Amino acid sequence: MKIYETALAPNPRRVRIFLAEKNIPMEYVEVDIAAGENLQDDYKKKNITTKVPTLELDDGTCIGESVAICRYFEELYPENPLMGETPLEKAQIESWQRRVELHLLFPVAMCFQHLTGYFKDRMKPRKEWGQDNVKLTMDFLATLNDRLAESTYIAGEDFSIADITALCTLDFARVVKIYPQKEHSHLIRWYELVKSRPSVSA
Amino acid sequence: MKIYETALAPNPRRVRIFLAEKNIPMEYVEVDIAAGENLQDDYKKKNITTKVPTLELDDGTCIGESVAICRYFEELYPENPLMGETPLEKAQIESWQRRVELHLLFPVAMCFQHLTGYFKDRMKPRKEWGQDNVKLTMDFLATLNDRLAESTYIAGEDFSIADITALCTLDFARVVKIYPQKEHSHLIRWYELVKSRPSVSA
Repeated sequence: MKIYETALAPNPRRVRIFLAEKNIPMEYVEVDIAAGENLQDDYKKKNITTKVPTLELDDGTCIGESVAICRYFEELYPENPLMGETPLEKAQIESWQRRVELHLLFPVAMCFQHLTGYFKDRMKPRKEWGQDNVKLTMDFLATLNDRLAESTYIAGEDFSIADITALCTLDFARVVKIYPQKEHSHLIRWYELVKSRPSVSA
Repeated sequence: MKIYETALAPNPRRVRIFLAEKNIPMEYVEVDIAAGENLQDDYKKKNITTKVPTLELDDGTCIGESVAICRYFEELYPENPLMGETPLEKAQIESWQRRVELHLLFPVAMCFQHLTGYFKDRMKPRKEWGQDNVKLTMDFLATLNDRLAESTYIAGEDFSIADITALCTLDFARVVKIYPQKEHSHLIRWYELVKSRPSVSA
C-alpha cells in the first residue's frame, strides 16, 4: 500500500496529518507536479483526473481525492474518529469540512493558480479573478473567526478533519501572502492550539 | 424537520433526489436567492455561509451543505445506500462524487456566475474566467464519457450520490448552453438510464 503525492502541496499534507493522527504507517512516493509527472500516462492510469494524492492498495486498486482516502481509513479504523461518530456529528463535521474547502481552500488555490503563474504552462492565469479570491479568502477568515469565538475547534468541541483542512490551507496561503490578521483573535487561538499537535509535522 | 432551499438551484435538487431515493418525506421552504433572502440575518443564523439548502431539525439544530445533509440521512437510514457500504465502496463513491463536484459542478457554477451575470449585484463577473470554465467542463465530459465506457454508473455498478450530482449538474448546465455531445455516447447512455428513475422529478 502506498500514496503517490507531492510533499509540498496542501492536499497531500491533509492526508499525511490524518494518517498520523490515526497512527497509520504509510509509504509515500513523490510525484513531481511542477515537471508534469502527474500528466503522464502512467500516473493517469492510477488517477484519471491527474491530481495528487492517490492511494494505491496492494491489489493495485487506486483511490483518488484526499477526503476519499481519509474516508477509507476512517471506515477501516474508526478509533480516534476525525469524521464524527453519530449521524449528527458526521453531518456537522462534513458541513464544516466542506465550508472550509469551498470558502478557504478553493479560493486560496485560485489565488495560487491565478496570481503566481505556477501552472502557466498548462492554464491561463486570470489576475483579476485571483485578486477577487484574495478578498473571498479574507471574508471567510472573518467568518471562521466568528465561528471559533463559540467553538473550540471548527466543527465543535473535538478536533476533526475540518481542522486539518483549515490548517493546511492557512499554512499554504503564506505562498500568496495571505495571513490571519490581528483582529482574528479566535482564529489565532485555534491556530496555536492545532499547531501544537505532533501530527502537523507529518 | 424542514429544508430551506431554492427549488430551481442545482444543489437543493441533489438533496431532494437523494431523499426521494430513500423515501424520506420532507417539508421544503422556498428561499428567494435572486432577491437576496439568503443574505438576511434570519437565514444567516441558520447557515453562516448563506448558501442553500439548509436542513433544520425539530430542535432547531441546522446543517448546511448538500452532501452533509445527505450524509446525515445516509447514516440514519442506511437502507438503499447511496454512499456505499464497505470502506472501499464508500471511498470510491466519495472519490467520484468529488471529481464530479470539482471538475463538473464547480466549473458549471463558474460559467453560470461569470457568464450570465445572475449575481452581478453581489460579485463581479469575469467573462474570460467563465469562458475558461466552458472548456474545463467540456474536457471533463470527455473524461466522464471514458469512465462510463467501463462502468454502468459513475462510481461503479450501483447508482450512487455521484450520479445524482452529475445529473443535476448536466441539467443545470443547459442554462449556460453546455450539453453532452454526439461523441459522448457512453455519457448519453448513462444519462438516459439515470433520467428514467422516478426520483429525478423530485
